[in-house]
Amino acid sequence: MTIQRLDPIGRSEAAQAVLEAKRRKGITWARIAEELDRSKVWTAAALLGRHTISKEQAITVGKLLGLDEAIRDALQLPPVRGTESLDPGEPVTTRLEEIVQLYGGAVNELVREEFGDGVMSAVDFRMDVDRTEDSEGERVVITLDGKYLPYREF
Amino acid sequence: MTIQRLDPIGRSEAAQAVLEAKRRKGITWARIAEELDRSKVWTAAALLGRHTISKEQAITVGKLLGLDEAIRDALQLPPVRGTESLDPGEPVTTRLEEIVQLYGGAVNELVREEFGDGVMSAVDFRMDVDRTEDSEGERVVITLDGKYLPYREF
Amino acid sequence: MTIQRLDPIGRSEAAQAVLEAKRRKGITWARIAEELDRSKVWTAAALLGRHTISKEQAITVGKLLGLDEAIRDALQLPPVRGTESLDPGEPVTTRLEEIVQLYGGAVNELVREEFGDGVMSAVDFRMDVDRTEDSEGERVVITLDGKYLPYREF
Amino acid sequence: MTIQRLDPIGRSEAAQAVLEAKRRKGITWARIAEELDRSKVWTAAALLGRHTISKEQAITVGKLLGLDEAIRDALQLPPVRGTESLDPGEPVTTRLEEIVQLYGGAVNELVREEFGDGVMSAVDFRMDVDRTEDSEGERVVITLDGKYLPYREF
Amino acid sequence: MTIQRLDPIGRSEAAQAVLEAKRRKGITWARIAEELDRSKVWTAAALLGRHTISKEQAITVGKLLGLDEAIRDALQLPPVRGTESLDPGEPVTTRLEEIVQLYGGAVNELVREEFGDGVMSAVDFRMDVDRTEDSEGERVVITLDGKYLPYREF
Amino acid sequence: MTIQRLDPIGRSEAAQAVLEAKRRKGITWARIAEELDRSKVWTAAALLGRHTISKEQAITVGKLLGLDEAIRDALQLPPVRGTESLDPGEPVTTRLEEIVQLYGGAVNELVREEFGDGVMSAVDFRMDVDRTEDSEGERVVITLDGKYLPYREF
Amino acid sequence: MTIQRLDPIGRSEAAQAVLEAKRRKGITWARIAEELDRSKVWTAAALLGRHTISKEQAITVGKLLGLDEAIRDALQLPPVRGTESLDPGEPVTTRLEEIVQLYGGAVNELVREEFGDGVMSAVDFRMDVDRTEDSEGERVVITLDGKYLPYREF
Amino acid sequence: MTIQRLDPIGRSEAAQAVLEAKRRKGITWARIAEELDRSKVWTAAALLGRHTISKEQAITVGKLLGLDEAIRDALQLPPVRGTESLDPGEPVTTRLEEIVQLYGGAVNELVREEFGDGVMSAVDFRMDVDRTEDSEGERVVITLDGKYLPYREF
Amino acid sequence: MTIQRLDPIGRSEAAQAVLEAKRRKGITWARIAEELDRSKVWTAAALLGRHTISKEQAITVGKLLGLDEAIRDALQLPPVRGTESLDPGEPVTTRLEEIVQLYGGAVNELVREEFGDGVMSAVDFRMDVDRTEDSEGERVVITLDGKYLPYREF
Amino acid sequence: MTIQRLDPIGRSEAAQAVLEAKRRKGITWARIAEELDRSKVWTAAALLGRHTISKEQAITVGKLLGLDEAIRDALQLPPVRGTESLDPGEPVTTRLEEIVQLYGGAVNELVREEFGDGVMSAVDFRMDVDRTEDSEGERVVITLDGKYLPYREF
Repeated sequence: MTIQRLDPIGRSEAAQAVLEAKRRKGITWARIAEELDRSKVWTAAALLGRHTISKEQAITVGKLLGLDEAIRDALQLPPVRGTESLDPGEPVTTRLEEIVQLYGGAVNELVREEFGDGVMSAVDFRMDVDRTEDSEGERVVITLDGKYLPYREF
Repeated sequence: MTIQRLDPIGRSEAAQAVLEAKRRKGITWARIAEELDRSKVWTAAALLGRHTISKEQAITVGKLLGLDEAIRDALQLPPVRGTESLDPGEPVTTRLEEIVQLYGGAVNELVREEFGDGVMSAVDFRMDVDRTEDSEGERVVITLDGKYLPYREF
Repeated sequence: MTIQRLDPIGRSEAAQAVLEAKRRKGITWARIAEELDRSKVWTAAALLGRHTISKEQAITVGKLLGLDEAIRDALQLPPVRGTESLDPGEPVTTRLEEIVQLYGGAVNELVREEFGDGVMSAVDFRMDVDRTEDSEGERVVITLDGKYLPYREF
Repeated sequence: MTIQRLDPIGRSEAAQAVLEAKRRKGITWARIAEELDRSKVWTAAALLGRHTISKEQAITVGKLLGLDEAIRDALQLPPVRGTESLDPGEPVTTRLEEIVQLYGGAVNELVREEFGDGVMSAVDFRMDVDRTEDSEGERVVITLDGKYLPYREF
Repeated sequence: MTIQRLDPIGRSEAAQAVLEAKRRKGITWARIAEELDRSKVWTAAALLGRHTISKEQAITVGKLLGLDEAIRDALQLPPVRGTESLDPGEPVTTRLEEIVQLYGGAVNELVREEFGDGVMSAVDFRMDVDRTEDSEGERVVITLDGKYLPYREF
Repeated sequence: MTIQRLDPIGRSEAAQAVLEAKRRKGITWARIAEELDRSKVWTAAALLGRHTISKEQAITVGKLLGLDEAIRDALQLPPVRGTESLDPGEPVTTRLEEIVQLYGGAVNELVREEFGDGVMSAVDFRMDVDRTEDSEGERVVITLDGKYLPYREF
Repeated sequence: MTIQRLDPIGRSEAAQAVLEAKRRKGITWARIAEELDRSKVWTAAALLGRHTISKEQAITVGKLLGLDEAIRDALQLPPVRGTESLDPGEPVTTRLEEIVQLYGGAVNELVREEFGDGVMSAVDFRMDVDRTEDSEGERVVITLDGKYLPYREF
Repeated sequence: MTIQRLDPIGRSEAAQAVLEAKRRKGITWARIAEELDRSKVWTAAALLGRHTISKEQAITVGKLLGLDEAIRDALQLPPVRGTESLDPGEPVTTRLEEIVQLYGGAVNELVREEFGDGVMSAVDFRMDVDRTEDSEGERVVITLDGKYLPYREF
Repeated sequence: MTIQRLDPIGRSEAAQAVLEAKRRKGITWARIAEELDRSKVWTAAALLGRHTISKEQAITVGKLLGLDEAIRDALQLPPVRGTESLDPGEPVTTRLEEIVQLYGGAVNELVREEFGDGVMSAVDFRMDVDRTEDSEGERVVITLDGKYLPYREF
Repeated sequence: MTIQRLDPIGRSEAAQAVLEAKRRKGITWARIAEELDRSKVWTAAALLGRHTISKEQAITVGKLLGLDEAIRDALQLPPVRGTESLDPGEPVTTRLEEIVQLYGGAVNELVREEFGDGVMSAVDFRMDVDRTEDSEGERVVITLDGKYLPYREF
């Protein structure tokens, strides 16, 4: 019991460092996304640790946000996608989950009616978050776009 | 212990009856939605028991599907929106939940950046399920559209 | 295995019968509360099975809603107050629970500051649900009013 | 495994520092609320980490409580609103949850009767904790006041 | 799929029948306990299904409450003592559980100090529920009395 | 990520320090309780972190056990009463919970019969742990004594 | 409460009927699979309710097993694929789950090494169960074969 | 409270060190497996902490990856095989679990039909992960191969 | 919704019938075991539904207990071995589980020391329950006897 | 936030130190048990933290394994017996739990038949782990031996 263990920097710590630098420098997700030539959703998800980031992407982000080398290295670690990646009680998230709860059955019915017996892929997938406005105020518009995968008989 | 209790017909049984009649008559959600002048998602969600159905709507659906009066009455009962309304392990649903898990943090960040400190409403809300096609096959496109609700200081 | 068991009518079935009769006759909770000379919240909670109902109260409600004797008897059974009494995922309830989650710590701090080391009773307790309106629309106002119970040294 | 990771100060640590300074200096939530021109509930909830705190507000609180810069900075981080924000077994909280359990169904019924099919918002929301007294002793009075949000057909 | 299965009467149904007969006849637990020459707690627990009831005891209770033979037989079935035997969210129970939560550690310390390394048996055990009164009102006094069982080295 | 966070001493650490000093000095709970003029149960529960300890009480205990100032200060922090305060699988505790499970229904019935519709308070409450002996050995006797709180109509 | 509800025959009841007829007639899964020109795994999974069965397939199976029309119809209902479809504690299943627990991390590493950042599809998927024998006895060989789905940047 | 505790290096930390060295040196699992003369699945599982590693194996791996002695020692500690060894929400894993959920019943049926009443061992077991390709792209092929263990009457 | 579904008799109902006949006829497990030439544990477990029962065994038991044909058939259905097969809170069971909790780690250490890296099979397994007596009273002696299964490198 | 907290050495750390020293010195549980004149199961369980260890026993073990004073002190702390003391998913343990699941009902029946209404104590208890061999290989034999505790009427 004489060897000191120091926890290494992982994707989670790298995400904290990105958030801190972003705030300190006043740089938006939109700006980082533009620099990476990716959508805002992919950019934020990837830097929060959910997607693979290439060496070039890590260097680009590192330069923009002034991240040191240890953080740039950590950004290139494999993504962390398990249940620990989200607090299930956070209010923005609980409303998304309520939507799945209310409309999941309808989605299931409509996918079966219009496509057949299958699912919308969560891997071959893209997503956007946009802002619109109507007479009663601002609205959040989220688009989920995934490949249809049919079950096959074998 | 001599009084026989007969479970009444609720929204869940009415939904079963709708699904059965729909299959027997070969009528689509698209057709029912058109008859009701509502979107397919609202129509399917409402008939599965998740939304309030008016007397007129119940009569319209009842006529189209040939539902008897007990079912038409049951369709007008209050909606059932709790956790019992969805099997959380069903594959179409687990992928929606994986999407919330992977991208919930990014949505949270982007809502804060583009709107401020608040949430997308799941009540003042609408949703579409569409089908597109690209060179690699069919894609499911789901649009979530909810009012932005800001937290207020008090 | 030759004796037929018939489930007796309990508070839950009595509540279903009240809701059904109420809807059929178009009688409001406000009207029933007035007849019982109790608040609307107590009246609805009690008839849903959460509070003790006296013989006189059961007769009054039974007359108003046209309930038969078996239901009037069942209304006088002991209340059912356990976790089974509420669907935790129902949207009206999830928002109440989110409020407890967000403000529970603050309530704890303010009770300690203004009263001392103790709790607000949920038994010596009353509650109101009211409706107000401001320039931006209707608001739900819920008042919780419970005796302060201090911890005592012994 | 040679890089030492030091956990940054977050909202949770800032809340601990506020509680410690508050106790050391003998300053009440009422006093801090007055200084911020906000209600006591908002003030306590925000400083415990549940709401956004502006730079000006952080400076005001920092001056009053003598907080150092690292804490004043941490108070301006995004709020933490997930399930980790509350111990569900704490006695003040369990009684609030018992109230939701006992009266949630009644609230649901009365909202439907007096407003329609919708919910009380937990975002466009305010709350007070007050103290009254009757012949049998002190009472805690908590007022919840949230915008009514109706479900819309689409 | 042509054989009709009829659920047999078990301890749970027998308990329902006892409660119903008790209410109809206006007989108290105290009275039944006296007839059985047992304590009120044992009597209520046993008739609710938690303890073995002998043939003689079943006949005595059956005579007093006017239970038919099927119920008297079912009372002699083995007890049901699993987790299904109690609703953990019922308010009387949640307060008992809160007491275990608050004072369990202290009981553990005091048993170790005054007895040694062991437990209070829940099998070689008796229990009373009594009523006292002081200047501020009625009090419930519950006495738990169990054999001390020491861990042994082997 | 350059600011070192040091976890402050809380009630849990103060409890550890009390247990350590108690063992080192060979001082019993009975002795500490006598010094504080409180019961052994309250004394052990309070020093384990479950109850508020006044400045005078902290000084008395500190002197007796030779605790340094940081620990005496920490003893005066608010109590920690949530679910984290007890390991639910510890054998002394599991037997208490089995007792609640087996006899909770009987307690509920007897409280209703002898008091009315209400609960035994866990706040206006006291408790003793005693030792008796009969011909078959030692017995643990635990007395729970709480105010009866009736539900009120409103 | 006067309308009798009779639960309709669903996929679960159809599966029971298939198992019963299969046993009564002594027909193997291998034989049914041959008749359907599908693998044994798909055949068993589909008839247990996990996959869509066409009208022709239902007729084929119905003829082979002597199923009546109500069962043949129920076999054509949508599949049931949620968590309710398996008892997680059944010994054959717990060993499969232990395998996922022990080797899931290794699979993840090898998929990343040999394919890239993606998953093995559970929808575009086939599976076999075979029997081999070595000197120490019989062995079960299960082959999982699913399309590789890569995450895409967007 | 004056003795500093330093967490020792366990299998989990050794696994982190292996992953880090592997990435830094660009060495594949295939290469390590070849060096150890074991399959890729066993090699990855063992180095991730799921299997026993002998002194010779630890030296071989340590030389290849340039691991220091503390890590080589830690690799020889007993394996860690409990539920903590896998994040159940990771997408590669959730699809494996969905496969168990969908096909577990069919496996159970086929094992009973072809072997008898027993299970596939997860201990006397081997597993491969391979890559194939068909006209529609790459496929992951996982082979599970375990001894058949029959239940015995006794 | 016009087809009546009658739940078939399964292993669980057959077990109820066995228990009922056993009690009515006053026949012991020991006696049934003798008739079957099996141990008491296997006999009780099998008749409770946990093991396969052959046609001959079902006939033997049926004759001894006077079971009708439907029950004798149901006894020959596949065993039910999932988590639903036991109430985890039943006191005899909770003590067995406490033993696993207290001594599981020690068993693991001793198996590793005396056998190597492997497990005791729960399939190639036998078990006895015996009764002994010492000066302080009766003792229950349970013997678990399972094949040692070593993990193999591959 | 300026006082550094150092976690004290508890039973869990002492167990780690014992395991480490045991491995380094190549000393078996059998050898330690012999030195202590206790069984191997008690010895391993006690040193893993599940039982009380006397000063003399700690000195004996400390001398044998060369443990320093801090560890010898920590071995004399009270045992830790809660649910945290075991990983429920570890394969040796899951098989023990599967045995409880499969045979718990049979044990319950046989205890009732041969002893009466009571339980096998897990406190007045001893246990052995032995090794036998038959023609098909090694077998693990575990003996559980606990006092029979009858429920008493009161």
